[in-house]
Amino acid sequence: MSVRPAPEPPVRLTRWEQRTELPLFAVSLLFLTGYAVRVLAPHSAQPWHDIALLLVWSSWPVFLADYAVRVRLSGLGARFVHVHWLDTLVLLLPLLRPLRVVKVYSAVQQRYGRPRRDLYARVMTYAGLAAGLLGFSAALAVYHLEHTAPGASIRTFGDAVWWACATLTTVGYGDAAPVTFWGRTVAAGLMACGLALLGAVTGSFSSWLIQVFAREDEKRPPGRGQHRGGRF
Amino acid sequence: MSVRPAPEPPVRLTRWEQRTELPLFAVSLLFLTGYAVRVLAPHSAQPWHDIALLLVWSSWPVFLADYAVRVRLSGLGARFVHVHWLDTLVLLLPLLRPLRVVKVYSAVQQRYGRPRRDLYARVMTYAGLAAGLLGFSAALAVYHLEHTAPGASIRTFGDAVWWACATLTTVGYGDAAPVTFWGRTVAAGLMACGLALLGAVTGSFSSWLIQVFAREDEKRPPGRGQHRGGRF
Amino acid sequence: MSVRPAPEPPVRLTRWEQRTELPLFAVSLLFLTGYAVRVLAPHSAQPWHDIALLLVWSSWPVFLADYAVRVRLSGLGARFVHVHWLDTLVLLLPLLRPLRVVKVYSAVQQRYGRPRRDLYARVMTYAGLAAGLLGFSAALAVYHLEHTAPGASIRTFGDAVWWACATLTTVGYGDAAPVTFWGRTVAAGLMACGLALLGAVTGSFSSWLIQVFAREDEKRPPGRGQHRGGRF
Amino acid sequence: MSVRPAPEPPVRLTRWEQRTELPLFAVSLLFLTGYAVRVLAPHSAQPWHDIALLLVWSSWPVFLADYAVRVRLSGLGARFVHVHWLDTLVLLLPLLRPLRVVKVYSAVQQRYGRPRRDLYARVMTYAGLAAGLLGFSAALAVYHLEHTAPGASIRTFGDAVWWACATLTTVGYGDAAPVTFWGRTVAAGLMACGLALLGAVTGSFSSWLIQVFAREDEKRPPGRGQHRGGRF
Repeated sequence: MSVRPAPEPPVRLTRWEQRTELPLFAVSLLFLTGYAVRVLAPHSAQPWHDIALLLVWSSWPVFLADYAVRVRLSGLGARFVHVHWLDTLVLLLPLLRPLRVVKVYSAVQQRYGRPRRDLYARVMTYAGLAAGLLGFSAALAVYHLEHTAPGASIRTFGDAVWWACATLTTVGYGDAAPVTFWGRTVAAGLMACGLALLGAVTGSFSSWLIQVFAREDEKRPPGRGQHRGGRF
Repeated sequence: MSVRPAPEPPVRLTRWEQRTELPLFAVSLLFLTGYAVRVLAPHSAQPWHDIALLLVWSSWPVFLADYAVRVRLSGLGARFVHVHWLDTLVLLLPLLRPLRVVKVYSAVQQRYGRPRRDLYARVMTYAGLAAGLLGFSAALAVYHLEHTAPGASIRTFGDAVWWACATLTTVGYGDAAPVTFWGRTVAAGLMACGLALLGAVTGSFSSWLIQVFAREDEKRPPGRGQHRGGRF
Repeated sequence: MSVRPAPEPPVRLTRWEQRTELPLFAVSLLFLTGYAVRVLAPHSAQPWHDIALLLVWSSWPVFLADYAVRVRLSGLGARFVHVHWLDTLVLLLPLLRPLRVVKVYSAVQQRYGRPRRDLYARVMTYAGLAAGLLGFSAALAVYHLEHTAPGASIRTFGDAVWWACATLTTVGYGDAAPVTFWGRTVAAGLMACGLALLGAVTGSFSSWLIQVFAREDEKRPPGRGQHRGGRF
Repeated sequence: MSVRPAPEPPVRLTRWEQRTELPLFAVSLLFLTGYAVRVLAPHSAQPWHDIALLLVWSSWPVFLADYAVRVRLSGLGARFVHVHWLDTLVLLLPLLRPLRVVKVYSAVQQRYGRPRRDLYARVMTYAGLAAGLLGFSAALAVYHLEHTAPGASIRTFGDAVWWACATLTTVGYGDAAPVTFWGRTVAAGLMACGLALLGAVTGSFSSWLIQVFAREDEKRPPGRGQHRGGRF
């Protein structure tokens, strides 16, 4: 519990990340909203389309600027790209930003001084949130790519969300599935990320449940049942 | 093993919960039965329909009263809604009551003074029971919502149960799948809850099996095999 | 490592089980073979059909006799049915016998004095074997029940085996799926048992792999790589 | 951390394996490339077909020679086939070579003196790589076996890759599935291997995430949030 800063990331980088986390998250929500409006609004809704496009294109430079500052502060130079490959990937594909929600989550908790929740509960919350946001992004992207394709089974945004649910949980009914090359690429990405995240949710739920039952054993209230139980 | 009550829930709340658990479970079984009759009985069976409706609508005030008493006894006021969010959700959607089966299960064990079973066995039993009941509720709800929809693949209650099995285990053949908005919403809920519960069953079965094999190592009877085994 | 017998099962019961395990396994393989011939042979192959039927019906009394002896030796009386519920279930549904393969496996190992394998390897072997045999039994039963049903997608035994693979691994393509009530009941049983067994295989494989990598860390041969690695 | 060699594999065998690992991996990549060209190139591209065939057939004797040397060095004689059954299987089915990628991976790390990564990260990397390469091999093999079959749903190599993704992650939409006997045999193999590998990826990701969150608890920077958090 000493105040000694961790040796690896420089103090200024850590501070920068802590301060920018929430604003950046707001920007990425704007990005997602813009993309959603762009994809979902009918083509005739001219003003909204343009505003959405503006949102999408104006949030990206913000991400780029943040990335540049962090490369600078880290003092790693070109090695930053390799060491922080997830950040690099997220810069190129902003729809993957939900994966960074873990830092936002702890930033929020810290700012409002909430007492830390149970370890497993936090892992579940983070992985569940990230999976949900990724699923939503993937549903948007797949709807965008598929709904005009010939022979597509994903024709409405509802179908796309339904497909994302069935894919994330690996149920995979197959009543809605992408048919185009890019739709399938997005789907493969969702399977890979989502499977790992869902596995984390399931795994920590299982550990948490076992913990709950183990704890209950200890605090079993003494009474008639306990007494008779002792007879065995 | 001290008798000191746990500091968080007040003693009176704990006592209330212990006493009402089994009656409330009986009421929720009545609720489920009523809903099942309501959904499954042919429309012409007039008296049964009305009795079932009565059951459904008369059990809900009981749940509400229990909730109100518990809010009062907890001394948390409005924060109760947030802290006990699962109870709040279960009040609004009584079909989710199976999730509370864990408390019923330990209440039964306590009342009859049964010796506690193995930790993993209990987790498996609880998660399996909850998954089974949730699956049954979901099958009822999906059958209710789907069987008259145009183009539905779930036309009989048997189809709905089959769909629930294939969904809970994430097999997802796709020969039966909901097509309406509300049917798909219920399905997404079943996937989320059921996946976690099934993961818990699988996880604790795996841990239990490893434990069984590890124990067997220790109590291996000494004999010819053991002896020759020692030669290696 | 004391020679003291475990207090619960009486010594004579343990001895009986050790001695009968392998003969009983042989009988249950005969049962499975008989059932397989009965299901797979064309109806015209008259002599084989009768022999197969004879095998099936003559092996069951053997199981019953073994069960009766074990009830007697255990000294539990009617409680045996409850305590050893898996054995009771296996008596009624001999196709579930693969679940008992765990005892056969250790009996074989003991008889031939093979050194014990790694814990995880044994769990994987047992669960994999049991899953494979159960899958084969289920494929036989589903083929038996489905191949003459109207609108069936499982028409050959190959289809049934393919369906069993896709079900056990929860892939569930849906190109072959049971359509009759009893076929679906068998399928639901396979999903439940198989999912847990496969989860055990996956879980112990994962643990085993982590163990292998952890061990490798320790025995890393000292050399140029090691040396340069130390520089970091 | 003593320099004592592990007692089981003879020193010369270990040295042989370390030296040949990377060249053999290069040969197996050539094999895979050859097979891919053979399967994917149009039949009219005569010269390439022949070169690919040459690659495939000339790499196999290399594998055989390596196997023979290792049998010799191990001093196990015929027992080598049983003890190193995975190597034997890989010799017979070179498309399974990705399973040996674990040794290549550590060989590369050792040669370049990279600092060892986290245990879970390594398990994830290995299992992910092996699953990816196996999936690619299976996609090649299934495309080879299926694309001319009557009634096939896998008609292009893209379909085969899509099918491999959906199978490895157990999503199994069923829009593309093998229909021939050998295609289904390959698919069953992919399910079995892939499921275990993917389970390892998921399992270690879950463990890793829990570790990350647990570590974060310890290095939480002291500040306003921390302070207020202490009040609770």
